[in-house]
Amino acid sequence: LSGDQRVKDETRLRVIAAAKKLSYTPNATAQSLIRRRSNIVGVVVSDITNPFYPVLVESLDRMFAGSGYRLILFNGHGTDERADALRHLSSRLVDGLVFTSALLDYPFADELAALNAPVVFVNRYIDDPRFDRVVADNVGGGAHAARLLVEQFGHERIAVISGPSTASTARDRERGFRGFLEEIGRALDESLYCSGPFTRDTGVTCCQKLLSREERPSAIFCGNDIIALGAWDAAVSSGVSVPGELSILGFDDIPIASWSAIGLTTVRQPVASMAQAAAEMLIERIEGSAASSGRTNVFPTELILRRTVGLPSRLRVGAS
Amino acid sequence: LSGDQRVKDETRLRVIAAAKKLSYTPNATAQSLIRRRSNIVGVVVSDITNPFYPVLVESLDRMFAGSGYRLILFNGHGTDERADALRHLSSRLVDGLVFTSALLDYPFADELAALNAPVVFVNRYIDDPRFDRVVADNVGGGAHAARLLVEQFGHERIAVISGPSTASTARDRERGFRGFLEEIGRALDESLYCSGPFTRDTGVTCCQKLLSREERPSAIFCGNDIIALGAWDAAVSSGVSVPGELSILGFDDIPIASWSAIGLTTVRQPVASMAQAAAEMLIERIEGSAASSGRTNVFPTELILRRTVGLPSRLRVGAS
Repeated sequence: LSGDQRVKDETRLRVIAAAKKLSYTPNATAQSLIRRRSNIVGVVVSDITNPFYPVLVESLDRMFAGSGYRLILFNGHGTDERADALRHLSSRLVDGLVFTSALLDYPFADELAALNAPVVFVNRYIDDPRFDRVVADNVGGGAHAARLLVEQFGHERIAVISGPSTASTARDRERGFRGFLEEIGRALDESLYCSGPFTRDTGVTCCQKLLSREERPSAIFCGNDIIALGAWDAAVSSGVSVPGELSILGFDDIPIASWSAIGLTTVRQPVASMAQAAAEMLIERIEGSAASSGRTNVFPTELILRRTVGLPSRLRVGAS
Repeated sequence: LSGDQRVKDETRLRVIAAAKKLSYTPNATAQSLIRRRSNIVGVVVSDITNPFYPVLVESLDRMFAGSGYRLILFNGHGTDERADALRHLSSRLVDGLVFTSALLDYPFADELAALNAPVVFVNRYIDDPRFDRVVADNVGGGAHAARLLVEQFGHERIAVISGPSTASTARDRERGFRGFLEEIGRALDESLYCSGPFTRDTGVTCCQKLLSREERPSAIFCGNDIIALGAWDAAVSSGVSVPGELSILGFDDIPIASWSAIGLTTVRQPVASMAQAAAEMLIERIEGSAASSGRTNVFPTELILRRTVGLPSRLRVGAS
């Protein structure tokens, strides 16, 4: 039934006829036990409701499907989904794991390394050279964002709403942003700094706080698009014009960012290319053709200029 | 090792010591072969980038996790992911399937019924009494929407942007909407009808078409929120005020609908309750405690009044 060439044609036909008569279907669990391969790959996501992840999951799904692998999605906000994923890997229910939203304090690194099993970190990574990683140049993207606000648009009072310091993306974007400001001798005003989880709520709350200050910022750099859209929503719905009174800059370029009524200016991560690289690296590990040490694949980011970043009022012709 | 009470304590300790010495880990694939249960449930989604589905998937994930089941996500736009899901079910890699976005012309109904395996349709269903289904009262929701626009706000020129006629949700919502209008003797003007896939593009394209007519509609009922948000985006970005010149009504109540700068008026599906019911029904089937015929569980919908529906201009005080 498996098409083995050593079986005589006559025998093969008799087996096929018998299988048909008995309505026999091969048991995939039994087959995967023999082959020691499930052709299923686990993807660990911390928050599928952040619109960045469905886009990444769909890209990964497409890339893996092209090579005959299906995805199991491990979704969750705690350590449960990571422990589950690890258990599935150690017991070979999945052939490999893609971590999309790892935290820097990831608690299972040694267990993972001891398994010596196929793993790749995409988007966020952990500071551990034993593992493959696919990332955007978040430091460079943060620096581009600072240059845009300061040099191209002349902003002086700039706020930052950052993601959690435990996420490599938040840390690196902020590092790049601060680095550029320090380089030109204009360190970030810490009274204009706010941070929280990568959620819309963080953007809403931090923006309201920043707007309630006597001296408001003229621009905000946000750790990702969903924070930026929260900030945009808080500003617009309280009558603050964007970008007239407040410029807002995001990171990721999720689909909503491009809606014409919003037009979020942002720093794009090349999601499809990153998903393709992650799938290729993981499949190489599964099929045993990769080197043993961890590899790093960094993708350049791109500034996407839309409507939420403009000149501060003091530089606008006709401004009062 | 499995904790069988018939094994003597002395023997148990010797087995545990030996397992420890040999670094033995139970092979989950082998275990699932013996138990004939994988504790994995497959969820079939046609478009994870439609924000309704991540919310539904997360709800399902939470409900199933509470009973010790993990999800495999089968995502795709064609028949591949449905064939894959069926293959996983027939070969017992998953214990059951949740279909979230079935089409009425679902091609595998007989294969599925022949397997006699645990299956539930949630959100969209197929017209086949053999299967369990969990749905919102889409006919009732459509009728509520029509009543809101006609009776509460006095709209007369009403357009419809519907989803695909192959989806039960699109069909039932439209049926309820049209039914109410016919009941009061005001059948829908077919020149104001437009339909397409459940995507933002459908909303943008149909709205642009409707707005280019000499006599514009004063209100649009949309087949779901992502279509409504496309229509909203097309209207706002071409200078048509919402709801001043155009009222827009959606269906689902996805998170973006509640953003204050948008404030989409919509008909809510109770996603968390529906996910809970679907998980309970499927687990009953997996554990063999359900009746053999298909069951239907219908949840009421709720009108969520926000800012995108208002009075038509002829009824506004001070309108020219």
